[in-house]
Amino acid sequence: MLFPCLDKLEDRSQKFLNESSGPEPAYGKVGKHNTLLYKSDEPIFLDYGGFLPSFEIVYETWGKLNEDKSNLILIHTGLSASSHAKSNSLNKNPGWWEGFIGPNKYLDTNKYFLVCTNVIGGCYGSTGPSSIDPSDGKRYATRFPMLSVQDMIRAQNRLIKEQFGVSKIYASIGCSMGGMQSLAYASEFPNEVGKIISVSGCARSHPYSIAMRHCQRQVLMSDPNWNRGFYYDNKIPPHTGMKLAREIGTITYRSGPEWEYRFGVERADPSRQPALCPDFLIETYLDHQGEKFCLEYDPNSMLYISKTMDLFDLGLTNVSKLRKGRFQAEEKFNGKDIDPKELQFRPVESACSIDPDTAPVSNVRRTRKLTPLESKVDLLEGMKHFSNKDILVIGVESDILFPAWQQREIVDLLRQGCKQQGLGDGSNIKHVELSEEVSMYGHDTFLLSLEHIGEPVKHFLEG
Amino acid sequence: MLFPCLDKLEDRSQKFLNESSGPEPAYGKVGKHNTLLYKSDEPIFLDYGGFLPSFEIVYETWGKLNEDKSNLILIHTGLSASSHAKSNSLNKNPGWWEGFIGPNKYLDTNKYFLVCTNVIGGCYGSTGPSSIDPSDGKRYATRFPMLSVQDMIRAQNRLIKEQFGVSKIYASIGCSMGGMQSLAYASEFPNEVGKIISVSGCARSHPYSIAMRHCQRQVLMSDPNWNRGFYYDNKIPPHTGMKLAREIGTITYRSGPEWEYRFGVERADPSRQPALCPDFLIETYLDHQGEKFCLEYDPNSMLYISKTMDLFDLGLTNVSKLRKGRFQAEEKFNGKDIDPKELQFRPVESACSIDPDTAPVSNVRRTRKLTPLESKVDLLEGMKHFSNKDILVIGVESDILFPAWQQREIVDLLRQGCKQQGLGDGSNIKHVELSEEVSMYGHDTFLLSLEHIGEPVKHFLEG
Repeated sequence: MLFPCLDKLEDRSQKFLNESSGPEPAYGKVGKHNTLLYKSDEPIFLDYGGFLPSFEIVYETWGKLNEDKSNLILIHTGLSASSHAKSNSLNKNPGWWEGFIGPNKYLDTNKYFLVCTNVIGGCYGSTGPSSIDPSDGKRYATRFPMLSVQDMIRAQNRLIKEQFGVSKIYASIGCSMGGMQSLAYASEFPNEVGKIISVSGCARSHPYSIAMRHCQRQVLMSDPNWNRGFYYDNKIPPHTGMKLAREIGTITYRSGPEWEYRFGVERADPSRQPALCPDFLIETYLDHQGEKFCLEYDPNSMLYISKTMDLFDLGLTNVSKLRKGRFQAEEKFNGKDIDPKELQFRPVESACSIDPDTAPVSNVRRTRKLTPLESKVDLLEGMKHFSNKDILVIGVESDILFPAWQQREIVDLLRQGCKQQGLGDGSNIKHVELSEEVSMYGHDTFLLSLEHIGEPVKHFLEG
Repeated sequence: MLFPCLDKLEDRSQKFLNESSGPEPAYGKVGKHNTLLYKSDEPIFLDYGGFLPSFEIVYETWGKLNEDKSNLILIHTGLSASSHAKSNSLNKNPGWWEGFIGPNKYLDTNKYFLVCTNVIGGCYGSTGPSSIDPSDGKRYATRFPMLSVQDMIRAQNRLIKEQFGVSKIYASIGCSMGGMQSLAYASEFPNEVGKIISVSGCARSHPYSIAMRHCQRQVLMSDPNWNRGFYYDNKIPPHTGMKLAREIGTITYRSGPEWEYRFGVERADPSRQPALCPDFLIETYLDHQGEKFCLEYDPNSMLYISKTMDLFDLGLTNVSKLRKGRFQAEEKFNGKDIDPKELQFRPVESACSIDPDTAPVSNVRRTRKLTPLESKVDLLEGMKHFSNKDILVIGVESDILFPAWQQREIVDLLRQGCKQQGLGDGSNIKHVELSEEVSMYGHDTFLLSLEHIGEPVKHFLEG
C-alpha cells in the first residue's frame, strides 16, 4: 500500500534538513513593522504565581479615539488569530474579521475606535514562549509561566490605560477564547467597561472541550521534534505534531451539519481503492487544514494558550484562588525580603498516575469534590458582581466545542445574579442563539456567518 | 517544566529495547486453546477486489443449538472487542457483555444458542493483518486487503452454514460496528435471518465519525514505530501512536453528560501548578484509557477496521458497486484465464492533494456529487429489500459517535421502504431511543446500562 500522506511529512522534514537554515515558520515572519507595539517595563504578576519582569503587546487599531476617549472597543481574538482583524494602513492584507469591521459595518469605524491585541502567550509579537527571557537572553520555551485568561486581560488593561489614557472602554467583544476574555474583562474590571459581548464563549470550560484540547496537546508533545519545547534552535520544527493537532482542532471548530451538506460520505476519488491515507472528502479537508497551519503558529504558544482555555473558570473558588496566588507573588516581590527568582513560576510534576477509572462511574462524588449543583452555585457566586452590566451573549446550536448550553448557562447565571441582588429582572442580559437552520457552521460561525452575528452586535452596541 | 507523561512513553520504549524480545503485546497472547476455530479453505472474494485464499474465524458459543437448528443468535462485536462476550467453560474470565448473557438473562442461554465471532481483519485469531500470508509465509501487515463490513458478514455466514449447518439464524444482534454488521446481515442474507437488532449503529457513516477515526489513524500512522505497518519484527511497537489514538477514540465512546457529573473541571491535584501533561481529572482518565489499551490491540487491525467502519454505506450505489467488484474478482478467478495474483488487492495512491477548501462552502455541489436528498433516497433504495423484516433499532441521545439521528434515519427509511412497497405500515420496525436522563454514558451505553438495552432486546426476541 502507498502512503502519500506519510511521504509528504517525510519530505517536509527532509526539506528542513537540506536547506541551510530551513524554511522559516510563518509566525516568525510576523514583523513589528506593520503593527503597533506597547511595552511595559513594570512586572506583571500572574495568577498561577510568579511574574514576567516586563512584557510587550503587539496590537492594531481602526477608527479614531474621540475627544472624551469614550469610544474604544477592545476586540479579543480566538486561540490562533492575530491582531490583524481587518486590513489597515500598515497592513493591507484582509484580516480575519474583514467584513465585520469598517465604516457602517457591524463594528463601525466611523463611530468607534477599535483595538485588537495579540494575547500574551501567543506568537505574533506579544510576549510568549518564543520570546527572549531577559534573564538569560534565550527563548523562554517551556520555561514560560502558565497564564490565565485574566492575566491576558490585565496585560491588555495596562495597554488601554497607559497607551491610550482610557479609563473606561465602550465595549469589549470577543469570540471563542475571545468570548472568555470578554467576560473576564467584566469580571476583573467591572467599572472600566460599558458593554460586554461574548460570542461562542463560556464562563468555564467543560470536559469534552478539555478532552479535545488535551488530545491536541498530547499529539504535539509526542512529536519527537517538539523536544519538550526546546525546538527553536533545531532544524526541524514539530510540524507533524502541529498538523495532527490542527486536524483534531478543526473537528471542534467546524463539525456540524455543514459537513453533511458539504462532504457527506463521498470519497475524493471513488474509482480508486480505499486507502489508509486521506481518502474521503472530509479527510482531504482535514488534511489540508492541518497542512496549511502546521508552520503558521508557534507550537509552544498553541500548548500554553490551549491550556489557558482549559483552566478558564469564573467560579468563585477558582477566581479567589487565582487572586490570592497573584497577590502573594506581588506582596513578596514588593517586600523585597526574598529573592524574586523564588517567585518565578515553578511547575511541578503533574498527577499523571491517578487512575480515576477505579472509582465506579455511579459514584461520581469520588472523583469530583463539588457536586454539579454546588459547582453551578460557585459559578453564580463568581459572576454576580458583574451581573448588572449590559451584556450580550451569542451562541450557536451547531457548536460542539462551546455548545449552546454554555452560553445559556452564562445568561441564566447572570440573570439569577441580578435577581438575587435586587438589581432588576435580568433584562440587561441579552441572549441570541442561532439555530441549526440559521447557521450550520458550528463553532466557526463567527467567521462565516457575519450577518447573523453582526446584526445583534450592531443593535446592542448602538442601542 | 517536568513532563512525566513523556517520561512514561520513553520508559516504555526503553523497556522494549532492553528486554531481549520485548514485552509481547497482549493481543499476541490470545490463544486458540480457549476459543473455537473454524477454517475455510475456499477463497473468500472481497468487495474491494481480490480475495483471501483461505481464512480462519475464532469464535465462542454459549447455550445449545436445538434439534431443528432454529435458535442460533449471532452476536457481532464492536471494533476492538473479542469474541469473549461472556465467561464460558473454555475461558472463565468475565466477558465484555457478561451481565447481558446467561440463563434467564437478556440473551437467555436456556433458550438460545449464542455465537460470537472475532471479525476477520481483527487480531484475536481470525484472519487479519497480523496473520501469515500463505503466499510467502510472512505477516500480511499493510499488504492485507481492505475489507467491507459485508465481507466480515459473508465470512461469518460461511461459519454459520458450514460449522453448524444452520440455514437461517434466529437473530442477529450487535452494537456499534456490530450494529452495522447486524443490518448488513439482513442486507446480504435477508432470508437467512429472523430478527435483527442494531444498537447504537447506523446505515452509513457520517462525516464527524469519519473525521474522528481519521485522526486516530493519522496519529497512529505518524508514530515512526508504526513503520508503514511492518512493525511485527521490530523491537518497539507503535505504542505511543496507539495510546494517542485510543485517547481520541475514548472521547467518542464516552463523552456525554457523564463527564460533567463525574469529572467536571476539577484537577487531579489542585495544589499543584497547572502542567501540560495530564492535569484535569478528565485528562488523567483519558491518559489511563490510552495506557491500558496501547498494547492490547494490533495497530494494523485498528487501522483496517476503523477504515472499514468509515466505508460502511448501505446505499444502493455503494452496495451495487461492492457487489460488482466482488463478482468480477470471482469470475476472473473462476475463469482461470488470468493470474489470480492480478486480482489481489492493489491499493493505489489516494487523493491526498485535493483541496476541497477552494470550493466555497455555500456551493456544496462542488464537493459532493449527490445532494443530501439524493443521497438519502439512495440509502432508502439500498435498504428496502429487507424493510419487511422484524427489526429493533436502539439509539442513545447522548451518543456523539453514532448520534441518535442515525438510528432514527434507519427506522424512518425502513418504514418508508415498507410503505412504498405495500408491505404494511412499518410497525415491524421497532425503535427505542434512550434519553439523556436514562443514560448519560454516550456511545458505550450498551456496555454500561445493561437493563435499558436489555429489556427491549429481551421483549423483542421473545415477543
